[in-house]
Amino acid sequence: PRTATVYRWLRGLLVGLMTAICAFTISLVVANFEGLRFVLLSHHTRSFVVQLAQKCAFNAALVIVASTVVLTVGPRAAGSGVPEVKGFLNGVNIHGALAKRTLFAKVVGSALAVSAGLAVGKEGPLIHVGSCIADAQWRRTARRGQRERRDLVTIGAASGVAAAFQAPLGGVLFALEEASTHWRSELTWRAFAATAVTAVAVELFAVACKSGGNPCGYYSGSGFVLFEVPRLDLPSRFLAQVWAIVPLAVLGGMMGAFFTTRNIKLNAWRTRTMAAKSRGWRVLEVVIVSIVTTMCAHALPFVVPSCVSGEPPGSERFRRFVAEVPLCKSGEYSALAALLINPQEQAIRILLTSAPGQISGPALAIFSLYYYVLNCVTFGVAVPAGLFTPSILIGGALGRAYCGVLRAVVPPVLLPGGVDPTLYTILGAAAYMGGLMRMTVSLCVIILEITGSLHPLPLVMLTLSVAKMVGDRFCSSVYEEHLKLKGVPFLDQRPPRNSDGSRNAMRVSEAMCRDVLAVPVKCTAEVLMKILSDGTTYSSFPVVDNDRCVVGVARRQDLMRLADSTVVAVRARAPLDLRQYARYVPPALARRPLAEAYSSFRWMGVRLLPVVSSARGRLVGVLTRSDLLGWSGTWLAERAAMDLDRDE
Amino acid sequence: PRTATVYRWLRGLLVGLMTAICAFTISLVVANFEGLRFVLLSHHTRSFVVQLAQKCAFNAALVIVASTVVLTVGPRAAGSGVPEVKGFLNGVNIHGALAKRTLFAKVVGSALAVSAGLAVGKEGPLIHVGSCIADAQWRRTARRGQRERRDLVTIGAASGVAAAFQAPLGGVLFALEEASTHWRSELTWRAFAATAVTAVAVELFAVACKSGGNPCGYYSGSGFVLFEVPRLDLPSRFLAQVWAIVPLAVLGGMMGAFFTTRNIKLNAWRTRTMAAKSRGWRVLEVVIVSIVTTMCAHALPFVVPSCVSGEPPGSERFRRFVAEVPLCKSGEYSALAALLINPQEQAIRILLTSAPGQISGPALAIFSLYYYVLNCVTFGVAVPAGLFTPSILIGGALGRAYCGVLRAVVPPVLLPGGVDPTLYTILGAAAYMGGLMRMTVSLCVIILEITGSLHPLPLVMLTLSVAKMVGDRFCSSVYEEHLKLKGVPFLDQRPPRNSDGSRNAMRVSEAMCRDVLAVPVKCTAEVLMKILSDGTTYSSFPVVDNDRCVVGVARRQDLMRLADSTVVAVRARAPLDLRQYARYVPPALARRPLAEAYSSFRWMGVRLLPVVSSARGRLVGVLTRSDLLGWSGTWLAERAAMDLDRDE
Repeated sequence: PRTATVYRWLRGLLVGLMTAICAFTISLVVANFEGLRFVLLSHHTRSFVVQLAQKCAFNAALVIVASTVVLTVGPRAAGSGVPEVKGFLNGVNIHGALAKRTLFAKVVGSALAVSAGLAVGKEGPLIHVGSCIADAQWRRTARRGQRERRDLVTIGAASGVAAAFQAPLGGVLFALEEASTHWRSELTWRAFAATAVTAVAVELFAVACKSGGNPCGYYSGSGFVLFEVPRLDLPSRFLAQVWAIVPLAVLGGMMGAFFTTRNIKLNAWRTRTMAAKSRGWRVLEVVIVSIVTTMCAHALPFVVPSCVSGEPPGSERFRRFVAEVPLCKSGEYSALAALLINPQEQAIRILLTSAPGQISGPALAIFSLYYYVLNCVTFGVAVPAGLFTPSILIGGALGRAYCGVLRAVVPPVLLPGGVDPTLYTILGAAAYMGGLMRMTVSLCVIILEITGSLHPLPLVMLTLSVAKMVGDRFCSSVYEEHLKLKGVPFLDQRPPRNSDGSRNAMRVSEAMCRDVLAVPVKCTAEVLMKILSDGTTYSSFPVVDNDRCVVGVARRQDLMRLADSTVVAVRARAPLDLRQYARYVPPALARRPLAEAYSSFRWMGVRLLPVVSSARGRLVGVLTRSDLLGWSGTWLAERAAMDLDRDE
Repeated sequence: PRTATVYRWLRGLLVGLMTAICAFTISLVVANFEGLRFVLLSHHTRSFVVQLAQKCAFNAALVIVASTVVLTVGPRAAGSGVPEVKGFLNGVNIHGALAKRTLFAKVVGSALAVSAGLAVGKEGPLIHVGSCIADAQWRRTARRGQRERRDLVTIGAASGVAAAFQAPLGGVLFALEEASTHWRSELTWRAFAATAVTAVAVELFAVACKSGGNPCGYYSGSGFVLFEVPRLDLPSRFLAQVWAIVPLAVLGGMMGAFFTTRNIKLNAWRTRTMAAKSRGWRVLEVVIVSIVTTMCAHALPFVVPSCVSGEPPGSERFRRFVAEVPLCKSGEYSALAALLINPQEQAIRILLTSAPGQISGPALAIFSLYYYVLNCVTFGVAVPAGLFTPSILIGGALGRAYCGVLRAVVPPVLLPGGVDPTLYTILGAAAYMGGLMRMTVSLCVIILEITGSLHPLPLVMLTLSVAKMVGDRFCSSVYEEHLKLKGVPFLDQRPPRNSDGSRNAMRVSEAMCRDVLAVPVKCTAEVLMKILSDGTTYSSFPVVDNDRCVVGVARRQDLMRLADSTVVAVRARAPLDLRQYARYVPPALARRPLAEAYSSFRWMGVRLLPVVSSARGRLVGVLTRSDLLGWSGTWLAERAAMDLDRDE
């Protein structure tokens, strides 16, 4: 067992390392495509319109490749992937969600979509990438226990966050809070070690890129703290600003919830419309979104130039843009253009660190709205699309704009210590992300790790709490709403309540499925085959003895294999004993509350819970995930389409 | 239900606020007693020996009051309290561990013990204080569900950490990783909000103390980040120092484990010796420890003066000491005395921030050893005693000494970027605490929050992982070992393994107790009384029907109340139906593996698991916590002494 333990540990660390490599690869590709586009398309001789058309074509070409790869190789790679990982860890195995082809499509698609300048991030996809790597690792192990699989995928998700934000602790906590339904202290520790490896590896890659000879092309790496802010020496009186933070948190929470409901409506419509159409239409949709995004990014600064004097911040690319496009007077640059033309990471740094008043209020509002609308439209098309980076941009710009309003409207005596734009940018991002994703501890740690600033911690916690509370009044988190939209029977930590918020007082007998196909523990292959072909939609069957007392639950594939081999051996009428195929599951009592059965179901990680009439154990029904959620009818239809519960 | 939810939330926040008030009170008392001692006893006219004797008497008086209060009012207040909280959250209700009298004794005893300069901290006790406050809150609620009780105590423990270290996130994670066995996302969120309130309240108290008029006496408050270190601008090459960190982590892990084994042996001996003796002996023990501590702190600088030039760091108290006691030449001070005479917080700051080479190696080694030995001796006497602050001092001094060795011995080419004493102080503290407490995420976040420095994060994570791995080879964490010593049947997350490390392959039938007193579901009060008086040591009874099939499990106190009321009503022979008193618990099957039953037992939070022979449900035995742990015999004896499982 000692060698096995060592191997188990090494597997975890390997997942961490491989996720770091994938993250590095994506960053490298993105930086180099952006650099390449700049070198190829920026010629002083051509007119601005020609340049814009060329950029649109370049970006369209990238997204065509991205969406084609996604649609042909791994359709499950579209979107952020967090809902799929969440569903998997909840016990719902969506077919192909963690397959190798999905991994390939995710890495390629994500790198190209971000390169093309779509309003999406590469962080959410990295969580999915980490999980796929973990599942591939699990497939290579000798003893494929389902628990080890879940553990590895949890570690993969944690490593994904760690690689995306260089936030190892945030990764562990993300996996703990958002993704995992089964958590043990040993797993915490394994995830902790794996994310430490990820962080060190990402750091070492960045160091290697900074060495002589420019080995990484246009990619120059980043510091250990991704968006390091200057030390916020907040005076203690800043706590008196609590009153000013609550409206921002409420606004952020409402915007997050509104994003979710709009995006869900849009995607429901999209699913209905696109279902009958060919892949070409889906590719066309992505191309249109890409062209609109590219054109908006270039046209918006003309609407609101918001000129400020000073050295143009950010990349070489933006400096060239300022020199070529006469938006402002000489020696000035457009702040809105600085946010839109620079890469996303640079835009976040500009929001966090530029001086008070440097970016005008209208510019901030337009920038926030630009990302808000386009991120909402893009999250759901056929490319990998993350929400984290756009959310930081949307919320950060919102917070900074709010800070400007405070400065202009509120008398300084009510704001002791003065308002700091950096602080409000952080709080705005926290408010919007809290409203969108509804995480608390993990989001807080991620914000802390990417800004490297501890002083605003109590205010960040307060903002997140309020934003989550406000958001919860409207809808669930964006990930859970997407799980519902996809028809994944996700079991939350608490049984669902009635629509008026009261506790569900149903009994097991009211929710259970009475029309049960049970397998007798002693039967012939002939009988078994008959039952299996009758119940084609079931993945598990209760096994009963002669008195219809529950012996256990058997999996379809085990029974199928047994029946096949027996029939092949021409012993179709020989008696079989199924006792060894039936896993014992403590049955639920029909007269007990449904909430109790919900907990056992969730805790035991079963797919089918037999229901008995009394402690004597006579089978009267079964409970499935869909029975527990109260949506049996709709779910069965979805299930066929989604290929749920099919083990590979 | 909406009002109930609001009240539930307010209760959590109130626990956070009250814990902050208690923490502030303790800090205030400690600072003022230290100040008072300084004013009363520092007179130039008296000789040094007289002063030392006076200090010994002053400190002895404090610990006499502390230990008397603990022994007479709340004996469960002795020690750190973390094992008691851990046990409670695991489902073992130690009688009086969270009572109000324990709370009183803990607050008074902790404040006085730390004031007396014992080698103990006030952080562990604060976790216990928070839990006691939470339990008192729970008693005041109308609907006293056991789950709400556990939730509140979890929140209380989190607030305790938050108040102790001004580390709100660390608090939530401590409760999550170390204390809680049942965790839900809603609870995370409640704890998160409560610790945010705690952090803000502690901060506001500190601000109030800094205002004019000196309202807090000698207490001057602290910054938001407790032991803020200067920004560690580590060069990227510092990652190449990984090789140098591993030996430190191994050493820290071994020292932590050695502390645990020694302390357990000492306390086992103490329990045996003190059991027969009166309380006076226990008070005498504390007095002797106090006098030895006071004398060592004053004598050690004479053994190793370790003079350095410069302004004496830390408190006014120490400056007076330097002026009065001619340990070094004029313009110099003794570095060892600086660590020993200053308050613990100041000593930590000196370790973290003093310049390289400022404190000599021998001084660091002696200081570390001083705290190591005295903390080991003191942890277990009849006063509240925390491990956190002493551990930071022991590990920090160790790390700093190790840094000096590296600097002296290793050629600089092997340590690119140079060794930074602050970094090694942090890593040393992490290594020792990792070896002692075996936490990962929460310890990491606490270290991050108290130092305010994010850059060494991957190295801290690595150190913690290695130290925990090393420590686990020798023993469990100090808290779990203390739980074992106290005879608390603590159910770990995994079933205990055999002594050779192999998986326990026992069946339920081999471990269960066959000699069961079952209560018939229909019986008379007479029969019931007979069974209850036969089974006086049991807190729960299985209820069976005529065929001995399990109906459920009933609690002793419910049955007792029923029987009493019926007998009083002179209906001793009237038939009773016990169905409503029997909680249904899915029984375990006798032929299944014990590990499976262990998980259900732990998950369901039951005290008794009925065992049945087949799915038909005929009772053949029961499983209790002690059966699961395989120490039935010893446990029953302890149980009588400990008053376990008795609900109040």
